[in-house]
Amino acid sequence: MGRDFTDVSMAVVRRLPKYHRYLKDLLDKEVYRISSRELSRLIGFTASQIRQDLNCFGGFGQQGYGYNVEELYNEIGKILGLNKIYSTVIIGAGNLGQAIANYPHFVKYGFKLYGLFDSNPKLIGMKIRDINIYDVDAIESFVEKNQIEIGIICTPKEVAQDIADKLTNAGVKGIWNFAPLDIKVPDDVIVENVHLSESLFILSYLLHEKEALEAAKRK
Amino acid sequence: MGRDFTDVSMAVVRRLPKYHRYLKDLLDKEVYRISSRELSRLIGFTASQIRQDLNCFGGFGQQGYGYNVEELYNEIGKILGLNKIYSTVIIGAGNLGQAIANYPHFVKYGFKLYGLFDSNPKLIGMKIRDINIYDVDAIESFVEKNQIEIGIICTPKEVAQDIADKLTNAGVKGIWNFAPLDIKVPDDVIVENVHLSESLFILSYLLHEKEALEAAKRK
Repeated sequence: MGRDFTDVSMAVVRRLPKYHRYLKDLLDKEVYRISSRELSRLIGFTASQIRQDLNCFGGFGQQGYGYNVEELYNEIGKILGLNKIYSTVIIGAGNLGQAIANYPHFVKYGFKLYGLFDSNPKLIGMKIRDINIYDVDAIESFVEKNQIEIGIICTPKEVAQDIADKLTNAGVKGIWNFAPLDIKVPDDVIVENVHLSESLFILSYLLHEKEALEAAKRK
Repeated sequence: MGRDFTDVSMAVVRRLPKYHRYLKDLLDKEVYRISSRELSRLIGFTASQIRQDLNCFGGFGQQGYGYNVEELYNEIGKILGLNKIYSTVIIGAGNLGQAIANYPHFVKYGFKLYGLFDSNPKLIGMKIRDINIYDVDAIESFVEKNQIEIGIICTPKEVAQDIADKLTNAGVKGIWNFAPLDIKVPDDVIVENVHLSESLFILSYLLHEKEALEAAKRK
């Protein structure tokens, strides 16, 4: 099968990891076949949405049979590029960097960690899961030498852009950014952000909103 | 001003934290006034999108003047409920839980941490920022007694639903969930998820996609 999903909207793509996660849960429960209706009940998307989404990638269901869970799981994994191995480094070896380094999904799905980097002399020389924490000053030569593809930024906001510049100069293709700012990178580098405070503020909004509605009802 | 934003779409709401972050950066740089066009250039939304978004909440701009940065920052903060104090607990005091406990934005925007909880005897009794790590078995009584509003789940997937049940039984109003599953809660409890693997898989998708396109071009 040729691979050209450039017409597939990012809205569809952003739902794929959720399909992947639910299909994995089904496999773990030894469920090998599922209808779009059952999948819909589980995952919370409508059955027609599910059929539409999966059709974007060639369609995997068979009329009257439903989906083969394992096949669908494997195909979505391939679409997500999870059959590949990615070489990665983490910059910022504090709690967050260490949490990412130890995150089970990270290792399991082919993200190979080559090193962590920090500026804190207390951390430099330590190991996380047998992986060294190096001086952040060595980042560019390390990335070049080991042809690192993904840099994961877990540093404070103040140094994140400088780190991003060093990573992209040294040749990384993608950045997973946890620092609370929008880093600037060359057009051919991909950035995916996890802005924790944005998520927290949405929770705060929804709680505040609910309280205001309840107060209005009481009047 | 009355507060009823029930008609405002979540798509707009989800952009508010980004406005808030950029306005804070402007204030830090002592910029006190900005046009929607300049804000657009900074933040990457179109000027008309910005005007539309902010109009949902009553509109803050003045023709020919632009936006008063401080006023807009404060108003968006209020809309997000950031002028309130929220009582919180973190369940799971490993690296991720500790990272959240130390996250500067967390403290700064009124999220008051009352305690961390873990099942690991090595962690119980330790402190993070002067805040105790308690035995997870005490979670329900602690939440009830201290009227905790938000529970933050940083546990492994396997125990997350059980923790969520205990938190909601004990009266929390919202859950910030980092465990890689969709927890089930009563209708009146708000859940905001941070699914790290979904973000990582999107990065993987985009890298894989880009590579496939480049390979196709070389043919």
